Amino acid sequence: MDPTDSRRSAAGTVAGPPRGILRLSHVDVSVTDLDLSTAYYTQVMGMEVTARTGDAVYLRCWDEEDHHSLRLRYAPRVGMDLMSFKVHHADDLADLEQRVSRYGFPVERVSAGESVGQGESIRFSTPSGHVMELVADVEKVGARPRSRIEAGGLEPFPRDHIGPPRMDHTLVTAEEVGEATQFYRDVLGFRITEQLLDGNGHQVGTWMERSHTPHDLAVVKGPNGGLHHFAFWLDDWDEVRDAADVLAHHGIQVDVGPTRHGITRGSTIYFFDPLGTRNEVFTGGYRPDPDFPTLTWTGDNAGRAIFYYEGELNDRFMKVHT
Amino acid sequence: MDPTDSRRSAAGTVAGPPRGILRLSHVDVSVTDLDLSTAYYTQVMGMEVTARTGDAVYLRCWDEEDHHSLRLRYAPRVGMDLMSFKVHHADDLADLEQRVSRYGFPVERVSAGESVGQGESIRFSTPSGHVMELVADVEKVGARPRSRIEAGGLEPFPRDHIGPPRMDHTLVTAEEVGEATQFYRDVLGFRITEQLLDGNGHQVGTWMERSHTPHDLAVVKGPNGGLHHFAFWLDDWDEVRDAADVLAHHGIQVDVGPTRHGITRGSTIYFFDPLGTRNEVFTGGYRPDPDFPTLTWTGDNAGRAIFYYEGELNDRFMKVHT
Amino acid sequence: MDPTDSRRSAAGTVAGPPRGILRLSHVDVSVTDLDLSTAYYTQVMGMEVTARTGDAVYLRCWDEEDHHSLRLRYAPRVGMDLMSFKVHHADDLADLEQRVSRYGFPVERVSAGESVGQGESIRFSTPSGHVMELVADVEKVGARPRSRIEAGGLEPFPRDHIGPPRMDHTLVTAEEVGEATQFYRDVLGFRITEQLLDGNGHQVGTWMERSHTPHDLAVVKGPNGGLHHFAFWLDDWDEVRDAADVLAHHGIQVDVGPTRHGITRGSTIYFFDPLGTRNEVFTGGYRPDPDFPTLTWTGDNAGRAIFYYEGELNDRFMKVHT
Amino acid sequence: MDPTDSRRSAAGTVAGPPRGILRLSHVDVSVTDLDLSTAYYTQVMGMEVTARTGDAVYLRCWDEEDHHSLRLRYAPRVGMDLMSFKVHHADDLADLEQRVSRYGFPVERVSAGESVGQGESIRFSTPSGHVMELVADVEKVGARPRSRIEAGGLEPFPRDHIGPPRMDHTLVTAEEVGEATQFYRDVLGFRITEQLLDGNGHQVGTWMERSHTPHDLAVVKGPNGGLHHFAFWLDDWDEVRDAADVLAHHGIQVDVGPTRHGITRGSTIYFFDPLGTRNEVFTGGYRPDPDFPTLTWTGDNAGRAIFYYEGELNDRFMKVHT
Repeated sequence: MDPTDSRRSAAGTVAGPPRGILRLSHVDVSVTDLDLSTAYYTQVMGMEVTARTGDAVYLRCWDEEDHHSLRLRYAPRVGMDLMSFKVHHADDLADLEQRVSRYGFPVERVSAGESVGQGESIRFSTPSGHVMELVADVEKVGARPRSRIEAGGLEPFPRDHIGPPRMDHTLVTAEEVGEATQFYRDVLGFRITEQLLDGNGHQVGTWMERSHTPHDLAVVKGPNGGLHHFAFWLDDWDEVRDAADVLAHHGIQVDVGPTRHGITRGSTIYFFDPLGTRNEVFTGGYRPDPDFPTLTWTGDNAGRAIFYYEGELNDRFMKVHT
Repeated sequence: MDPTDSRRSAAGTVAGPPRGILRLSHVDVSVTDLDLSTAYYTQVMGMEVTARTGDAVYLRCWDEEDHHSLRLRYAPRVGMDLMSFKVHHADDLADLEQRVSRYGFPVERVSAGESVGQGESIRFSTPSGHVMELVADVEKVGARPRSRIEAGGLEPFPRDHIGPPRMDHTLVTAEEVGEATQFYRDVLGFRITEQLLDGNGHQVGTWMERSHTPHDLAVVKGPNGGLHHFAFWLDDWDEVRDAADVLAHHGIQVDVGPTRHGITRGSTIYFFDPLGTRNEVFTGGYRPDPDFPTLTWTGDNAGRAIFYYEGELNDRFMKVHT
Repeated sequence: MDPTDSRRSAAGTVAGPPRGILRLSHVDVSVTDLDLSTAYYTQVMGMEVTARTGDAVYLRCWDEEDHHSLRLRYAPRVGMDLMSFKVHHADDLADLEQRVSRYGFPVERVSAGESVGQGESIRFSTPSGHVMELVADVEKVGARPRSRIEAGGLEPFPRDHIGPPRMDHTLVTAEEVGEATQFYRDVLGFRITEQLLDGNGHQVGTWMERSHTPHDLAVVKGPNGGLHHFAFWLDDWDEVRDAADVLAHHGIQVDVGPTRHGITRGSTIYFFDPLGTRNEVFTGGYRPDPDFPTLTWTGDNAGRAIFYYEGELNDRFMKVHT
Repeated sequence: MDPTDSRRSAAGTVAGPPRGILRLSHVDVSVTDLDLSTAYYTQVMGMEVTARTGDAVYLRCWDEEDHHSLRLRYAPRVGMDLMSFKVHHADDLADLEQRVSRYGFPVERVSAGESVGQGESIRFSTPSGHVMELVADVEKVGARPRSRIEAGGLEPFPRDHIGPPRMDHTLVTAEEVGEATQFYRDVLGFRITEQLLDGNGHQVGTWMERSHTPHDLAVVKGPNGGLHHFAFWLDDWDEVRDAADVLAHHGIQVDVGPTRHGITRGSTIYFFDPLGTRNEVFTGGYRPDPDFPTLTWTGDNAGRAIFYYEGELNDRFMKVHT
C-alpha cells in the first residue's frame, strides 16, 4: 500500500459511501421440518421463496432486492447456523478478515459459488459462540417496488400474511455479554446504542448498530451460541396490530406484545414459528445518529427497558431460546 | 501523511464510524418579524428556544441534543442564510475544505466562538447558489429523553403543538439541477437516492442522502439560491393527521396534503410559516441502504413522483419559494 | 287498535328495540358499462357480488350480512335510481307509508319477490326529487366474520383492494335544502346532527342520522334528484391512507383528500368510479347521541366545515355530481 | 291512556327519537383517598372536575356535555356505589319504574336537587346485586368542542394525559349471569350483542347495548355487586398506544394490553387506578346494528373471545375486581 493509494482511499472515504459492515444480510437457521417451516414463512410471514436446494429454502421480504434474508435448512435440531452481515465493499472483507485474525479467531474463506445467491464471504466464530459470516456481493432478485401496493400488484399479499418489507436485526445470547460486545465493537466496528447493566455494572444486554437503525445486532446474557430471536421490520404501529390479527387468525399465540421497548423505543410483538424459533416484528424507535451517546439502563429500570408498558420481564421471554 | 497513519486510518474506517457529512445540522433563515416567527416555531411547531442574540433566535426540536436545528435572523427580506451540515469528525472539515477548494470554490473558515452554539466551521457557496456550512462540533443542550412522554413530562407539549422530534431535510432550488447535484455528489459525497428527469433526460429534481434516510438534501429546478422548504420529521401517519389538526386549529392553511410522495414513499403536509417560508412535516419512506440503486422517475410519472395520490403538481407548489 | 295493544306497544318501545328507519340499506345507481363498473367495485373497492340479473349486479361489503348495499343497473345514463333505507320492523312500513301519504306524496308498494334479495318495500319521491325506498326484510347472505382477517381467511382480500366493512351514508343534492330536510326530519324522523347556513340563515347543507352515526343521509344545495356521492365506512385513519395507496395503484385520481371534515369530524377521501359516480371513504367522527344539539356552521367557516384542513372548497367538489 | 294518545305516541316513535335507555350516564365509585383519586383522574386520565362537595368529586371527559360521567366519593372501602344510565325522555322513567316494580324490585325516586348535576332519577337494585340509577335530565356544562384540538385550545391537554373523549361502558360481576342478563334484557331493554357460554351452555359473560355500540353494559361471572372495570372510549389504535405511553410515564403498570378482544373486536388496555379500581381504554369494534344476531362464544374459544391475541385469560384478570 503506497501513500497515493491511501490518500485516494481516505479522500474517497470522506466524500464516499461508508465502509465496513452495512447491515444484517441473512439469518440461517436449522429446522426439523422444512415444509412446515417454509409454509409458515411464506403463508403467515409473507416471504417469497427465491431458491430451493436439496435441504434448504431461501426467502426474502417484499422490499428486499438481495437474494435472501433467511435460509431454512433441514437438520434434526432447531438452532442458528450462522448470521450473515453484508459489508459495503469487497475490499472490506480483507480488512475485516485481518482484524478478526489479529484478534485471534481463525477466519474461513468461502468462495463464490459455494453459497447460494452470493459471492465470496468470510466466516469465523465469535466470542459469543456464534458463526458469523461477512459478505459483499449478493445476487439481486428483482427491483424493489415503489410501494407495498405495487408489490401487491405484482404478486398479491392477502391480508392474512404479515408481509414485512425487510429483515431488521438479530438478538443472540452469550455467557459473557461484555466480552462479546467488546469484540463486535472493537473488531467489527459496531456502535453500542444502548446497554443494560446489572447491579455490579456489568453488561447483561447490549444493542449495537451499523446501519443507522436502533440495532442490527444485540446480545443478552444466556448460553453461548444461542439465538433469542430475529426480527422483521414493519412500517408502523398499525402494522403491528395487523400482524397480531394475522397471528391470531393462524392460531399462533403471541409470546409478548403488542408493546413497546424502553430500549430502542420501538414497538414489538414476539411469537414463535411452528418449530420454536422466536420471531419479532418491530417498528419505530428513534434514528440513532452516530453522534448520540450510548444510553444506559440499570437494574432498577431493567423491566421497563425491555417492556416499557409491562415494566417487568416474564420467565419465558428470559429463558426460552434456540 | 505517512503510510502508517494511512493504514491506521484505513483500518479505523472499516471498523469505525462513518466519515464525512453526517446529516443536516441547522437551517438559517431570515425573517421580517422575529417575534412572530419565534411565536410560530415555538407555539405551533413546538420547538424550544435555546438561545437569543440581538437579531437572532436559535431553536431545537425535542429529540435533538444539538444546540439548534433552526436559526431565525431578522432581516428586511425572507430567505435562506445558509444550510449547515454536520460532519462526523473535526478532521473531515479539512478534508472537505480541500475538496471544495480543489473544485474551485473559495472556502471560508469560521472560528469557534463566532457562531452561537457551535465550534469551528467552514463555509462556501455551492453551484446552486446557496451558502453551505459544515461543522463538526456542536454544543449539546440536554440529553435526549427516552420518549415523547418523558419529554412531555419535563416540559409539556400540549396537543396544540406539532412537536416534531427533529429536523429532517431541506429542499433547495437551482437553475442547473444536474450541475448542482454533481457537486453535492462528487465533492461532498451525497448519494442520489432518486431523481426526476425531463423529456430530454436531464435532471430536474434530485434527492440525496448521507444519513441513511430517503433524503438529507434535495434540489429541484428553480432560481439559484432559492429555498423551497425545510422539513421536520414525524413518527407516523397519525402524527401527520395530528399535525394537520394543529394547523387547522391555528388557522394555518395547508399548501398540499396530507398525502404521500412517490419519491421517498414518505407521507407529508406542506404549509407556510407566517412569513412565507414553506415548511413540511414528513414521515415514512423506505430505508435507503447505500447498496440500493438510484430510482429514476420520468416525465410521464412526474406528477405521481411528487404527489402520489393526486398524480399532478399544482402551480403554487412549483413556483412559490423563498 | 285497542288500548291494550297500545300499552303493550308503548311498553315494548321503552324497553325494546328502536322503531322506524334503521340505516341506509342500499344505493341503486345506473351505469353505462356494467362490466367496467362491476370490475371496479369488486377489484378496487373489494365488494362481493351476491347476485346478477340480466341488467343488474348486486354487491355487499365484507362485514355486511344483508343481501346487498349497492345495486348497479345498466342504463344509457349515469345516475341514482333510488336510495333504500332499512326500517326496524315490518310494521314500521305501514306507519311510515301513512306519514308520507299524509304529507302528500304518493307511496308505491313493491311486493316481496319483485326486488332481488329483499321482501316487501314502499317507494316514494321526496321533495329533493329522489326516489326513496323503505324496506324491513332483507335476505341474509352469510354471517359476519369475527374480524377482517377472518373475512380474509375465507376469501382473501389482497392489499390492492380497499375492502371497506360496510356502506355508510349517501349525500344527495336538492334545490331547496330546507324543504327537503324538513321532510326527512318531520316525516321520516331523521335527526339533524349538523347544518350549514348561508348568509341569510338558510340551510345549504344538512347532515342527518337515524343509526347513531354522524350521518346516514345528507343534503346539499344543487339540482333536485342529484347524487353527490355515497360513502363506505373504513375503520381508521390508517385505512384511509391504505385506500389512497390502492387508488394510486389503480391509477384513480383522488378528488379531495385524505383530509378531515369539520362537519362530522370524520376523515375522508373523495374519488370517482370509472363512470363518474363520486365515492367516498369515511371514518371517525364523534358518536352523535340523540341528546346532542345540532351543530351549526355559517358562511365564514363554511370552507372549514367541509374541508377542515384546506379551509376552502374547490369548484369540482361543489359542481360535479350525477 | 286513550287510543288517540297511544296512536300519537306510536306514530311519534316510528318517526321520532328512540325511547328508553340511551347510554351509560355515570359511574359512582367509592375511594379511600379522594385527593389521590382525583389527582389520577385529572392528571393521568385527563378528566375535568365539574363539581366538588364535602365528600365527592364529579368529573367529565372533554367531549361530554353532561355534568359528569364519574363520581368519586370518599369511603373507607373501594367499590361501586351505583351505575347510572341516561334515558331519552323524562316519560321513560315512569315506564321503566313500572316495569322494574312489576318484576318485583322496589324502586326509589330521587328528587331533582338531591343529586348533584342532574334532575329526578329512579334507583333500584338489580339481580346482579348492583344499584342502578336511571335519569333523564342532566345538567349541561359547556358545549362540545369541534375537535380535540379545539378542546385543547380552550384548555390544553398535554400529552402526558390520556384524554379520552368520553366514558364508554361498564362491566360488572354477578353470581348468576343468566338471571342478571335476563333482567337487563327483558325489563330494561338491553340487547345482547355477544355472549360467552360455559360447557353446559350457561352464560358466563354477556355484552349488552342500547346506544348502538358494541356494549354499554356487560356482566361476567363473579360475586354479586362487583365492579370488574369501567371503560373510556379512545378514537383509534394509535391513541391506545399513546395511552400506554402515558401510563408508563406515570409508572402505572398495565394489567393487560395493548391487545384486542375477540368479543366486540375492540382494542384495549386494562390497568388500575391508584386505589385499585380497574380502568379500561377501549376503541374500535364493529357497529352493532339492532338487526345483527347475538354472537356466541363457547369454552373452546373463551380465551380468544376475551383476549384475541393471547388466546388465554390470566388469573388476575379473572379474579381481581372491586
